[in-house]
Amino acid sequence: MEQDNLDPSTLKKYQIAGNGLLDRRLFLKRGFQFGAMSTLLATNATTFAKSTTEPPLDKIRPPWMRKMGEPFSPYGNPSKFEDQVLRFPSHNAAVPGNGVSWSPLHLLEGTITPNGLHYERHHNGVPQIDPHQHRLLIHGLVAKNSVFSIDALLRYPMQSKTCFIECGGNSNAGWNKQPSRSEAGYFHGLVSCAEWTGVPLRVLLDEVGLNSKAAWIIAEGADAFAMQVSIPIEKALAPDTLLALYQNGERIRPENGYPLRLIVPGWEGVLNVKWLRRLQVSNRPVMARNETSKYTELQTTGKARQFTFVMDAKSIITAPSANMLLKTPGVYPITGLAWSGRGKIKQVDVSVDNGKTWGAAALQEPILDRAFTRFRIPWQWNGQPATIKSRAIDETDYIQPERHALLKARGRHSFFHYNAIISWHIDESGLVSHVYDETNATTPSNNLIDSGWD
Amino acid sequence: MEQDNLDPSTLKKYQIAGNGLLDRRLFLKRGFQFGAMSTLLATNATTFAKSTTEPPLDKIRPPWMRKMGEPFSPYGNPSKFEDQVLRFPSHNAAVPGNGVSWSPLHLLEGTITPNGLHYERHHNGVPQIDPHQHRLLIHGLVAKNSVFSIDALLRYPMQSKTCFIECGGNSNAGWNKQPSRSEAGYFHGLVSCAEWTGVPLRVLLDEVGLNSKAAWIIAEGADAFAMQVSIPIEKALAPDTLLALYQNGERIRPENGYPLRLIVPGWEGVLNVKWLRRLQVSNRPVMARNETSKYTELQTTGKARQFTFVMDAKSIITAPSANMLLKTPGVYPITGLAWSGRGKIKQVDVSVDNGKTWGAAALQEPILDRAFTRFRIPWQWNGQPATIKSRAIDETDYIQPERHALLKARGRHSFFHYNAIISWHIDESGLVSHVYDETNATTPSNNLIDSGWD
Repeated sequence: MEQDNLDPSTLKKYQIAGNGLLDRRLFLKRGFQFGAMSTLLATNATTFAKSTTEPPLDKIRPPWMRKMGEPFSPYGNPSKFEDQVLRFPSHNAAVPGNGVSWSPLHLLEGTITPNGLHYERHHNGVPQIDPHQHRLLIHGLVAKNSVFSIDALLRYPMQSKTCFIECGGNSNAGWNKQPSRSEAGYFHGLVSCAEWTGVPLRVLLDEVGLNSKAAWIIAEGADAFAMQVSIPIEKALAPDTLLALYQNGERIRPENGYPLRLIVPGWEGVLNVKWLRRLQVSNRPVMARNETSKYTELQTTGKARQFTFVMDAKSIITAPSANMLLKTPGVYPITGLAWSGRGKIKQVDVSVDNGKTWGAAALQEPILDRAFTRFRIPWQWNGQPATIKSRAIDETDYIQPERHALLKARGRHSFFHYNAIISWHIDESGLVSHVYDETNATTPSNNLIDSGWD
Repeated sequence: MEQDNLDPSTLKKYQIAGNGLLDRRLFLKRGFQFGAMSTLLATNATTFAKSTTEPPLDKIRPPWMRKMGEPFSPYGNPSKFEDQVLRFPSHNAAVPGNGVSWSPLHLLEGTITPNGLHYERHHNGVPQIDPHQHRLLIHGLVAKNSVFSIDALLRYPMQSKTCFIECGGNSNAGWNKQPSRSEAGYFHGLVSCAEWTGVPLRVLLDEVGLNSKAAWIIAEGADAFAMQVSIPIEKALAPDTLLALYQNGERIRPENGYPLRLIVPGWEGVLNVKWLRRLQVSNRPVMARNETSKYTELQTTGKARQFTFVMDAKSIITAPSANMLLKTPGVYPITGLAWSGRGKIKQVDVSVDNGKTWGAAALQEPILDRAFTRFRIPWQWNGQPATIKSRAIDETDYIQPERHALLKARGRHSFFHYNAIISWHIDESGLVSHVYDETNATTPSNNLIDSGWD
């Protein structure tokens, strides 16, 4: 690629914040003449395309064009060349069925999490449920106790909701004194986003008839742990609280609650009860183990947080992110995800100078309520150490806090709801690592991720 | 369930068209008192929930609650109980790599097609491409011939587009004199919808520099067929024409073009070239085999249709649909999909009296440009034979035609672009079959589909 179009004034024109952050619209419109894009991309000798005068690809065919391909498949799988794009399981040594598996957010793009990679959180493994035998009981403070088969539920009117589900314990390594060395998804990937389809719960609650004293529903899963949670009746009656049967078009996967999952958009993952078998309508919460010994947090005031249902706004730069390598200085796309349990994402700011200056990233349309929103902004990295971070703002004007502000508000005894701004440090060799601030960059692990970047 | 709430006037209030078509809002709002829903659902003795005074589910646990479940999985798969939810492959006996596999639309819900079930159309099998060796050549009427590796493409700014892809030959059994006996998806399922993410093609065309005579791009795939198509330069420069690398969040599946697919939203599936290896910029189309012997159609006027790029508006009722069974009279949800290559779906009308009267179905939000739109409307089936159909209207006010109108306009020599209104006949036993009109109902096949309905 020729370098003679290089024009520093062109590049300067697109700078919107310190340290080379470029206007989000640069990559979105065709407003500039031929040469402008290649000029920018060639800045600092970053060359993407290889010029060629005699295109050999026109004449010479690769091996896979010289033989018939593989046959049709009734159910498809990823390419064998993508066999490193996996969830990362981590379970309790004493109870193998108790643990999590992280979604590899740093290896994904767009906003939908494919079903095979949706994060997992189980307390006693994944039950293999026969849908013909499974039943949902609704009982307690209702006019008539009722039992529904899956076949019966399929007769009801359905609704779809594309939303994230995030474990209340996601990112909790952020409470540690030392920054995590894990890749972005294996640290923050207890969150995923899918299109869920099922029967609005309120349709069934109407049918069974709520007693006037109904204040809570206690939901129970059909796993060996018999997971129980309490949900206020107002949320149970919300139009988008679903008894979901489908996930991204097909029936829910076993690890995500097959055949029936409660979906409470925007609220803690644990409340989206999998393998749902029972809804008891009550005048008080169940105060199950998960609501007392867990999911309850002592604050600096001496009081405890409990029933912290809503997941606050959060964002993460997925690329560049921990253990990736920027091989040469030049223009890089910064991209990531933002979400909020309170509604739509309104804005995502990005800083490439450790929070001194910020610029607004482009948000991918459509921006959906309580769903992943993909953001993107170009950055011209000059080869010097830099710390990059993103900050989500939702439609309620809630602003994702810096880590020190979160620690100040919540203290050192927290375990759940870590939503602080996430910082990535790029050193002079281009290696990316997680930092709490610019002064304490960690040594990256040996576990280098192939960002795919040339 | 008690029957004593039954009130024919309640039901009548919600009727919006002949033969029991009910208001779409009936299932969407909580406007009516307790009892109204169960009244409706109990109409004609259709009982969904079983009343129970001593809920055994509270005390007795199913077998899968009495043992630890299955372990965490790095990449998940559907439940073994869903092993009939498959694509249906059909290939040429002489050339096994040449054929299609249909997406099981009648077994899916929502709007996203999961990656394992996206329809396939191959001409010589699925190449197994090493992404590190794959290259994209852009050459011809450009300032500089250029070669891009996949790693290089990953450095470019990306965009996402959720859109359908439909084979130009989808539903072509509709041109036959006898109605198809296949299930809805295995007749109309050469269409799917996914979130595609990649580099806008115009970014690369800007970079290589288009000659002023550039009028077409000729796209070539890296399969053994070396699939070639011609696309007008205006479409190539559209903001949402993408070089896609990701499908529903993860890298594109092999059968959908791994590692690189051209996405031309709203246009014939064949133009969304898989395994993309070459883009030749030209002043005229390539006139490849697929543009002359195929995808060219003689009309009643004696003239031929060619380069019929845009897929017109279409809809299909996915349930109830062919080979399903309505076991008893009562209220059923009618649901299906609508889409248009010209933009958003504006309205979907449903008729349950063979087109005499129509009512507007509820459309699931968000309604996206050139993407699947899910529609739903309740129907109270009285147990008598009935013919049901859906009619899509897009934002350009194009109306999906009745079959006789399509035949009149396009004649008997057509093979592609069949988008006529699809009619399902329900006989007095509740069996559903495909018909062209009420008088020629087919005998359903033995291949009965379990609708899941109780």
